[in-house]
Amino acid sequence: MATNSEYRAAVLQMRCGADARENREKAAGLIRQAAAGGAQVICTQELFCSEYFCQREATENFDLAEEIPGPSTEMFGRLARELGVVIVISLFERRAAGLYHNTAAVLDADGSLLGIYRKMHIPDDPLFYEKYYFTPGDTGFKAFDTKFGRIGVLICWDQWFPEAARLTALCGANLLFYPTAIGWHPSEKAEFGAAQVDAWQTIQRSHAIANGVYVASANRIGHEGPADGGLEFFGSSFIADPFGRFLGKASVDKEEILTAVIDPRHLETVRRNWPFIRDRRTDAYGPILNRFNHDRSLTRHGVRQA
Amino acid sequence: MATNSEYRAAVLQMRCGADARENREKAAGLIRQAAAGGAQVICTQELFCSEYFCQREATENFDLAEEIPGPSTEMFGRLARELGVVIVISLFERRAAGLYHNTAAVLDADGSLLGIYRKMHIPDDPLFYEKYYFTPGDTGFKAFDTKFGRIGVLICWDQWFPEAARLTALCGANLLFYPTAIGWHPSEKAEFGAAQVDAWQTIQRSHAIANGVYVASANRIGHEGPADGGLEFFGSSFIADPFGRFLGKASVDKEEILTAVIDPRHLETVRRNWPFIRDRRTDAYGPILNRFNHDRSLTRHGVRQA
Repeated sequence: MATNSEYRAAVLQMRCGADARENREKAAGLIRQAAAGGAQVICTQELFCSEYFCQREATENFDLAEEIPGPSTEMFGRLARELGVVIVISLFERRAAGLYHNTAAVLDADGSLLGIYRKMHIPDDPLFYEKYYFTPGDTGFKAFDTKFGRIGVLICWDQWFPEAARLTALCGANLLFYPTAIGWHPSEKAEFGAAQVDAWQTIQRSHAIANGVYVASANRIGHEGPADGGLEFFGSSFIADPFGRFLGKASVDKEEILTAVIDPRHLETVRRNWPFIRDRRTDAYGPILNRFNHDRSLTRHGVRQA
Repeated sequence: MATNSEYRAAVLQMRCGADARENREKAAGLIRQAAAGGAQVICTQELFCSEYFCQREATENFDLAEEIPGPSTEMFGRLARELGVVIVISLFERRAAGLYHNTAAVLDADGSLLGIYRKMHIPDDPLFYEKYYFTPGDTGFKAFDTKFGRIGVLICWDQWFPEAARLTALCGANLLFYPTAIGWHPSEKAEFGAAQVDAWQTIQRSHAIANGVYVASANRIGHEGPADGGLEFFGSSFIADPFGRFLGKASVDKEEILTAVIDPRHLETVRRNWPFIRDRRTDAYGPILNRFNHDRSLTRHGVRQA
């Protein structure tokens, strides 16, 4: 059961290659290193077992998927037990023939599979063809009582949706992990690169602020794909406190381990001073369950809607 | 009816005194100046007709309230018509004996009262005793088709709630105004002042990012209250584009007019590149209508919830 004690969280930032075994070994090495440095709850970047295969749509890429429980949860479950740490891994899940998800597995410090979260929001943009691969999650938004603390896990595109952070925080999570694979289109980097990194950090820091929770985001680095195109993953992994302040920030291009102390008592102090959860107008949020609330096509043409 | 043309928006940042007539005249002067500079949709800071009276609970302060329509909507309606601009004013509304709201009135460019929004989220913290004065709004979240564009108005504390921004954007607003009165407790300024301004801007910039809308926030300046205490309003009014980038930022202590061009076509471009609205999981957001979703008191003691 989750305690009210502080603990040390870590996110891993690394480059991935084509060989799944090598990627897993590299992640395992970073986890050992993080644990040696005192980390107790450790999260990988998104889909760390492979390159980011969603740059193209190809049926053979489904061979990269694995079952849960399966090889990765077994390997990292053993590692979690050996080190006595909680490990969150991001996997390409094969649930059934023709049914695949982008899934995070939470392995408790005794090595057991505590539960999974299936990515709820699936993007689809040039070179991020995820709707082809991943069925939208059906787990809903969750929190997990690990040995060290109650944590939530959301995945990449989820980070742009305040509803996802809110719902996970309302489940009692005091830390939100975001395993991520986000990068620049090299042709856009000069003009929009800095603004994209800033927006990516800003929206996640805002989840920390709005919900009074810690946020820890793990992104990959490295260029993947054709030399004259592809994606350059921009790293910039970070951990923010419940007021959105950076506790640590990684580079755009180096393999790194970021760690920070997660203190439930500090979280309580922040929420007492900024009591947003007290004042939510749950009675008035009903229309948030709609797709949109201003359809000109459903109103009389020319009639002013106020 | 709202068009798809660009227009120029402005927010006013000023110091307020004890005399309502003087405060109104000062705001009117700034509005004239903004309009002379090309502004077409102009928003005041919160409760600009008075000092921020919520620093103490006193029945006589209810005398500051006015009806809507009333003196302020008449004065600023005339000004809107004269200048041909839209004006959003933030007022202490007397709705009935014993029923008061913190209300924004939207005056269209022909001087008519287009509608009102009543602050939905009411704070209550040391020196911000708003729950004493303001009944939580019952208008819900709205957008207004002004002559120049479809805008939303939210008020101060609302800015910390992603649900409020989301619901207003789902009503089709392309610009969210936030009239505000936020300041430092002088005793906290050295330690927390910079972080508070940063969090305040970050959460609002995140609403721009999450919703692909412009955000324009108008805060007051000046110290109010006892010399050895009171509040120092920190200004820092700003306008952000639909990717959260600052288009303009004001000082912490000077009277200023900030303006920026609001371009619905740019907003469309941003949303095509970052199509968050497309991917919202409206089927899975139901529990957001609850107060909290992890009550230990409602579960069997000691049973792990995952």
